[in-house]
Amino acid sequence: MFRTKTCGELRIADAGQSVTIAGWVQRVRKMGGMTFVDVRDRYGITQVVFNNETDADLCDKANKLGREYVVQITGDVEPRSSKNPNIPTGDIEIVARKLNVLNSSVTPPFTIEDDTDGGDDIRMKFRYLDLRRPAVRRNLELRHKMTMEVRRYLDSKGFLEIETPMLVGSTPEGARDFVVPSRMNQGQFYALPQSPQTLKQLLMVAGMDRYFQIVKCFRDEDLRADRQPEFTQIDCEMSFIEQNDILELFEGMAKHLFKELRGVEIKEPFLRLPWSEAMKRFGSDKPDMRFGMEFVELDDIMKGHGFGVFDNAAYIGGICAKGAASYTRKQLDQLTDFVKRPQIGAKGLVYARVEEDGNVKSSVDKFYSQDVLRQMAAKFNAEPGDLILIMSGDDAMKTRKQLCELRLEMGNQLGLRDKNKFACLWVVDFPMFEWSDEEQRLMAMHHPFTHPKDEDIPMLDTDPAAVRADAYDMVVNGVEVGGGSIRIHDSELQAKMFEILGFTPEKAAEQFGFLMNAFKYGAPPHGGLAYGLDRWVSLFAGLDSIRDCIAFPKNNSGRDVMLDAPAALDQKQLDELSIAIVEPEKK
Amino acid sequence: MFRTKTCGELRIADAGQSVTIAGWVQRVRKMGGMTFVDVRDRYGITQVVFNNETDADLCDKANKLGREYVVQITGDVEPRSSKNPNIPTGDIEIVARKLNVLNSSVTPPFTIEDDTDGGDDIRMKFRYLDLRRPAVRRNLELRHKMTMEVRRYLDSKGFLEIETPMLVGSTPEGARDFVVPSRMNQGQFYALPQSPQTLKQLLMVAGMDRYFQIVKCFRDEDLRADRQPEFTQIDCEMSFIEQNDILELFEGMAKHLFKELRGVEIKEPFLRLPWSEAMKRFGSDKPDMRFGMEFVELDDIMKGHGFGVFDNAAYIGGICAKGAASYTRKQLDQLTDFVKRPQIGAKGLVYARVEEDGNVKSSVDKFYSQDVLRQMAAKFNAEPGDLILIMSGDDAMKTRKQLCELRLEMGNQLGLRDKNKFACLWVVDFPMFEWSDEEQRLMAMHHPFTHPKDEDIPMLDTDPAAVRADAYDMVVNGVEVGGGSIRIHDSELQAKMFEILGFTPEKAAEQFGFLMNAFKYGAPPHGGLAYGLDRWVSLFAGLDSIRDCIAFPKNNSGRDVMLDAPAALDQKQLDELSIAIVEPEKK
Repeated sequence: MFRTKTCGELRIADAGQSVTIAGWVQRVRKMGGMTFVDVRDRYGITQVVFNNETDADLCDKANKLGREYVVQITGDVEPRSSKNPNIPTGDIEIVARKLNVLNSSVTPPFTIEDDTDGGDDIRMKFRYLDLRRPAVRRNLELRHKMTMEVRRYLDSKGFLEIETPMLVGSTPEGARDFVVPSRMNQGQFYALPQSPQTLKQLLMVAGMDRYFQIVKCFRDEDLRADRQPEFTQIDCEMSFIEQNDILELFEGMAKHLFKELRGVEIKEPFLRLPWSEAMKRFGSDKPDMRFGMEFVELDDIMKGHGFGVFDNAAYIGGICAKGAASYTRKQLDQLTDFVKRPQIGAKGLVYARVEEDGNVKSSVDKFYSQDVLRQMAAKFNAEPGDLILIMSGDDAMKTRKQLCELRLEMGNQLGLRDKNKFACLWVVDFPMFEWSDEEQRLMAMHHPFTHPKDEDIPMLDTDPAAVRADAYDMVVNGVEVGGGSIRIHDSELQAKMFEILGFTPEKAAEQFGFLMNAFKYGAPPHGGLAYGLDRWVSLFAGLDSIRDCIAFPKNNSGRDVMLDAPAALDQKQLDELSIAIVEPEKK
Repeated sequence: MFRTKTCGELRIADAGQSVTIAGWVQRVRKMGGMTFVDVRDRYGITQVVFNNETDADLCDKANKLGREYVVQITGDVEPRSSKNPNIPTGDIEIVARKLNVLNSSVTPPFTIEDDTDGGDDIRMKFRYLDLRRPAVRRNLELRHKMTMEVRRYLDSKGFLEIETPMLVGSTPEGARDFVVPSRMNQGQFYALPQSPQTLKQLLMVAGMDRYFQIVKCFRDEDLRADRQPEFTQIDCEMSFIEQNDILELFEGMAKHLFKELRGVEIKEPFLRLPWSEAMKRFGSDKPDMRFGMEFVELDDIMKGHGFGVFDNAAYIGGICAKGAASYTRKQLDQLTDFVKRPQIGAKGLVYARVEEDGNVKSSVDKFYSQDVLRQMAAKFNAEPGDLILIMSGDDAMKTRKQLCELRLEMGNQLGLRDKNKFACLWVVDFPMFEWSDEEQRLMAMHHPFTHPKDEDIPMLDTDPAAVRADAYDMVVNGVEVGGGSIRIHDSELQAKMFEILGFTPEKAAEQFGFLMNAFKYGAPPHGGLAYGLDRWVSLFAGLDSIRDCIAFPKNNSGRDVMLDAPAALDQKQLDELSIAIVEPEKK
């Protein structure tokens, strides 16, 4: 062992001890005849002092140290004259007796500090230096702690972690697969799993009863801040349970994690919000409930007064931003621009301020009497000083989603989305299907194995679009951290589902035959859920991007710029796999 | 919840309780007016009784149950009249009041019992039924328990589990990579990692200090019983340590696992056997030390007596099989055939029996006097009743390996390789390089990042083949369960190593440039090791093949016969990836 102590553990009580530490040179400062060297390792920073008077040679050696040199230092722990209350080792320093340079370093391309001068690109290229920054390191430590706690919790509940294969079959339904050419089965390909969904269902058929796995999953989709081509899932499945059993067990896990990782004790049960209500009240299936600002529907009040936009709308709804009546015309114009952005796509925004005297001043005053406007404001319980923002449109669902974006933006502007506050809920009773304009057919909203609500099963024949599913999402602060469903365990019901989804029996058999076949051999009632680990860690860590809790992430082009992967292959490798690159012009 | 109790937990103390269980029908037996149904779940088997006299309808329903039907049964726990001491629930039965058939089952293709009538192929195709067999299920339970214990142990020692990417760059050195075409970077490929070796070294450069990961690795090699295209590694790395620190820490982990998983307490420190001694005494770098039968070298005694085979040999050595003098001529001929098999490739075998009177009777009596033969037997400490088996050859290493096979075979025949006995050791001081006849150059025995022993570094210039490495394997019962090394952290020494291995500086930079570059920024001294999880679980479970501890293994052609993967892709998928299949005739 190159050390007797880490750089994070020495305290005033250790004064007088002879110790050896090892780590990286954070900083070298010369002051008079003294040289101070801050030595850093994973556990902290310790100040080492070299005295030119007592040992000039040693001090000379210390003066030659550069940033990020790797050193081993032996000396005596002494109380510091000027203590540093900002670090746990700030009461002591080591008076050096020996200095051993274990390795030198060229000058790093950015400062190894929480507040670094390195931009994103350079930090990713030198990720091994970026990871030395305590802020980034702490994210990985949190991730480790989180997976340990998840495993401990699930183990204590009788779950078995079972590894499912990474080289599986391709299922062209759903997202795009990453594929792997097989050398031993020429012309054939494995796929990397998008999730172990069907395999965990087979484990239930196999009688494993309670399964989990923290597992890498892969999707070849275009990337953005919260999406990586490979991501990690906490994947769970249980047999002989109903929806409520799953919600209770995993709500327990979430509370356990909040307590262990953030010291937050959540006593109340999570709200269970039906999907239709979530859409009506917040315009979102993952509402951020750290703040209110719920939607108020205004069709009854605002229609029939000659304002054509509203009169012809299928939906009129608004939100009330407490105390925001002071918004200037410029700020309001910016909000209008915000909702008109192509990503949101609204036509405009109506606003109304409640003035000190209770009068309501709106951008559509010429169409509405003060009486109607006051009636409208009352529906929001608006008070003097509040700002009401109203949107309308000819598609209720679309307009609600636009209004949701506005609500979240107002939450940001008014500081209502505190990263240290957590609002958790379950969204339940998702629709079974959603209509795809592109495919011109119903698609499974969750996946084709989701069980419809028992009471809605008759509607599969009459009105499938109205059928609700035993599906649920866990939502924290407006982020869907996990979701799942009760699965179909009856092969006839499964066959019917495939039929509604437009699979021919042949296509269903080709893609999911192994699962439908397995269901003939005594499938138990089962269900489960999956959490996105990266997202959840980011949430606990207060990060804006999942990249910062991943050791070696890929950029938006799917490249690992540190490894410079992907890259061209040797022709020999291509030949062995019997594949060839098709040049774009030859396609 | 479909049950109040599992099928494994009811005991005589529960008699009188009303309970509900759920599970699979293992067996239905009619006896007089009673029907007995054994219900199985992951936790055990419980007997349920239906009485035709008290409820004929219910009993009738029970009589119609088939094997592997999924049932939910409510009834009262009662003491059994004829107890079954073979199962934990054997003291009670449930007198049924309600029977709910949750799912039916077609007849399974083999019996769901430890001693099944299903062959390997059918069991793999219906692996979800195979996994219902308690013997297979127990292997997965052991695997879960083992990974939990590994994580608990390493967490308690300050290790962080850090996920490294699955989509990395291809390194044509070493084994063959599985590759993944990139859609976003056309014509380029990711590779699946053969191990996270370089990434974990980068994590050490990043100051992570103690890393581990239980991680899937991939090698596109031809398969056999203990090799799968994807396998799981317990991968570990530490900074600021020396070899001894690693050996002690991981020996501690092994002892912890033996205690927790097998109840075996190993008190003594593991033997540390230098590689050269292991080869000399056992002809193997992974000696099975559950039994002795060490090699005795006989060049001095057996040469110069006119027996040409021995006189011209570079090596003569033998083993003494206690009490095996009773081997018949036929048995001895079979042993000779055994060593002559092409996989072993020896020319023949000399034997000598020690008779009751101490006389030695050998197959080469005409060349040796009784005096010489007795002298030879004495060197083995052979006693009356023992059998001595001698081999020779013109390549000492090759002959030792042949003799090793014979030793293991004799261990098997004499019952000395008890699966419930565990002999653990470290093999240390591996050679740095080995000569490759195929490549006509020195190859890294471990990998190119392995640190040579300090005292041998001068020989890198003069006699590289003689240089020993700071490399070590953990060996249990003749199986290499893990291995690792101290790594080079000095970029100059690393460059020299690449030179000896025949890399041009350009090729080294192309393949490992990111690592060599990282080493310029203050790499700490570090080292680590990796365990083969599949192998280690197999060893704890007493299995002959690693397949039986993997939920969904692949066959020898790399196929998952249950999923029928790999398979052909849609042309659309190939087009998106800009690749084409090359038909064999066009190559």
